[in-house]
Amino acid sequence: MREKSKSIGLNIAVVGATGAVGEVLFQVLEERNFPVAEVRPLASARSAGQRIRIGCVEREVMEARPEAFEGVDLVFFAATGELSRELAPEAVARGAIVIDKSGTWRMHESVPLVVPEINAADLDRHQGIIASPNCTTVGVVMALEPIRRKAGLRSAVITTLQAVSGAGRPGVEELRTQRIELAAGRELHPKVFAAPIADNVVPLCEDLLVNGYSSEELKLRDETRKILGLPSFDVSMTCVRVPVEVGHSATMLIETEVDVPVVDVISAISKFPGIVMTHDRGSCRFPTPRDVAGSDLVWIGRVRKDLASEKIWLWQVSDNLRKGAATNAVQIAEALLERKLIGRFCTS
Amino acid sequence: MREKSKSIGLNIAVVGATGAVGEVLFQVLEERNFPVAEVRPLASARSAGQRIRIGCVEREVMEARPEAFEGVDLVFFAATGELSRELAPEAVARGAIVIDKSGTWRMHESVPLVVPEINAADLDRHQGIIASPNCTTVGVVMALEPIRRKAGLRSAVITTLQAVSGAGRPGVEELRTQRIELAAGRELHPKVFAAPIADNVVPLCEDLLVNGYSSEELKLRDETRKILGLPSFDVSMTCVRVPVEVGHSATMLIETEVDVPVVDVISAISKFPGIVMTHDRGSCRFPTPRDVAGSDLVWIGRVRKDLASEKIWLWQVSDNLRKGAATNAVQIAEALLERKLIGRFCTS
Repeated sequence: MREKSKSIGLNIAVVGATGAVGEVLFQVLEERNFPVAEVRPLASARSAGQRIRIGCVEREVMEARPEAFEGVDLVFFAATGELSRELAPEAVARGAIVIDKSGTWRMHESVPLVVPEINAADLDRHQGIIASPNCTTVGVVMALEPIRRKAGLRSAVITTLQAVSGAGRPGVEELRTQRIELAAGRELHPKVFAAPIADNVVPLCEDLLVNGYSSEELKLRDETRKILGLPSFDVSMTCVRVPVEVGHSATMLIETEVDVPVVDVISAISKFPGIVMTHDRGSCRFPTPRDVAGSDLVWIGRVRKDLASEKIWLWQVSDNLRKGAATNAVQIAEALLERKLIGRFCTS
Repeated sequence: MREKSKSIGLNIAVVGATGAVGEVLFQVLEERNFPVAEVRPLASARSAGQRIRIGCVEREVMEARPEAFEGVDLVFFAATGELSRELAPEAVARGAIVIDKSGTWRMHESVPLVVPEINAADLDRHQGIIASPNCTTVGVVMALEPIRRKAGLRSAVITTLQAVSGAGRPGVEELRTQRIELAAGRELHPKVFAAPIADNVVPLCEDLLVNGYSSEELKLRDETRKILGLPSFDVSMTCVRVPVEVGHSATMLIETEVDVPVVDVISAISKFPGIVMTHDRGSCRFPTPRDVAGSDLVWIGRVRKDLASEKIWLWQVSDNLRKGAATNAVQIAEALLERKLIGRFCTS
């Protein structure tokens, strides 16, 4: 990563520097020319000491401890919820702003939960910690927001098809290992997921709760409501894990407040920032996870009216490590700069 | 296959004997001790001449031509729609009953479309041709029927996750080839499917029509209505192909006529013939394609009330080559015997 002069750069720390999201975060910061003065790669005690490559420089990962945040302007947390719970307040106490990718802070009333294309204005009321949504939520709200602005939202029925990297590096490793076992005709032994994931789909992401829902499903509902500012919006959902490395997809059936022609919905989606809309009827053009992996955008296709009602069906795919995680976090940081909410070293 | 004496067996022919469903059909006939006197493996001119193993006997596959049906009691068609269109009437004209797995005859008014657990009585009005539903439809209607009987049906929102064997042997071969290409880091070249299917999900099964729906989606709606006898039942659906060899899954959100407690729904599903219901809350027990491959039953799990309404969510999986195709066809033949609609050689 290019280290710019201190006059225009921020001192940043990344907690979870050795993880799947951490790796992409460094790439995205560089790709987007984010003004970095100094970068501190941090991780849990277990991963500290590892050496990682940031841009063209090899760096040692230090343990994430309260003292590591001294002199830091901005901390990205891309680690476990426990680490965020313990350390985010320590970073804030030392004057840093925290952008947290874990589930810990998202539903706290004082914490803005932000997808910048939708609710960057919520950043203005931040109190040190800002949450970035669950990877599944980001694509879903990006698809919903242009429709909300055009016609209002009444309900959505969502089935997600989630990539294994949503469970981090161990998820990707489990799929890769099982692909080899499968080719060799050996039995598959699940550890990360609740059932074998190679040559399979598993109707459970994260933990199953006593009400029959998974924690992933409840996150999707609650975060969607908070980001869209619609506390009683009807979100119905089933989250499914699929044997795909990168790229979360979803089918969505959306009921609007006002009936609008499908061409107007397509137009509203097409014009919304951060979305690529594919809409060539009959030409079999639609996005798939392999198409969108590596993209910072949310891809939408197969937009059509329900045959039984005025509801809208669509198909949505995004890179869960990028727009679903790292890119959205960096966009939040960019929005903080734009809104002059951070940057004591900035000259502008 | 055991060839029983003519006094209790039927002369059967299988058109599509070299295909994925044909292979399973021979297995299912043997497993279920279907009373077979003579079996004729038939196929299109392109596949005729191949040798296949039926039970412990190797047989040459003959070309499916009108004369091949002379003296045959029952013909299973598990080939292309064109072959069914041309040859099913020829078989009927020669005194045979046809059980057709293709899409050709399903929506004809004079053709019963049958899932025996649901509407075996429709067989009584057959006029020679009986249709077995699309593999996706079978699992869906099996999940819906016990709920219909308990509480009536108003609407269903369905997302299917369909195995590649739904596209026959070429579909399975494409996935297997692409898995090898993927492991070798080579580019994936789709032929059978509209996009690469290894490490991917593809939101299109069969052809995309001008109204934005796939032919598979419309089949699912129309066949479901016909089998359940609910011509205006609201079925909303998106069909997605997933990198799984065998086993079609679906998420289903079902609106009933009458509100019933979820325990009553679970009880109704559990008691319905041909279904295995998993319902241990909190224990992560639910069916996946790899669990159900090889099973003749439809597996249902994750039954729960929608959090926003009185609707019912469930997850349903079945072996698309067995209950979705071969097993259902053989069950139709068994129902014909039970109802004494076939079997001129039967002594009973």
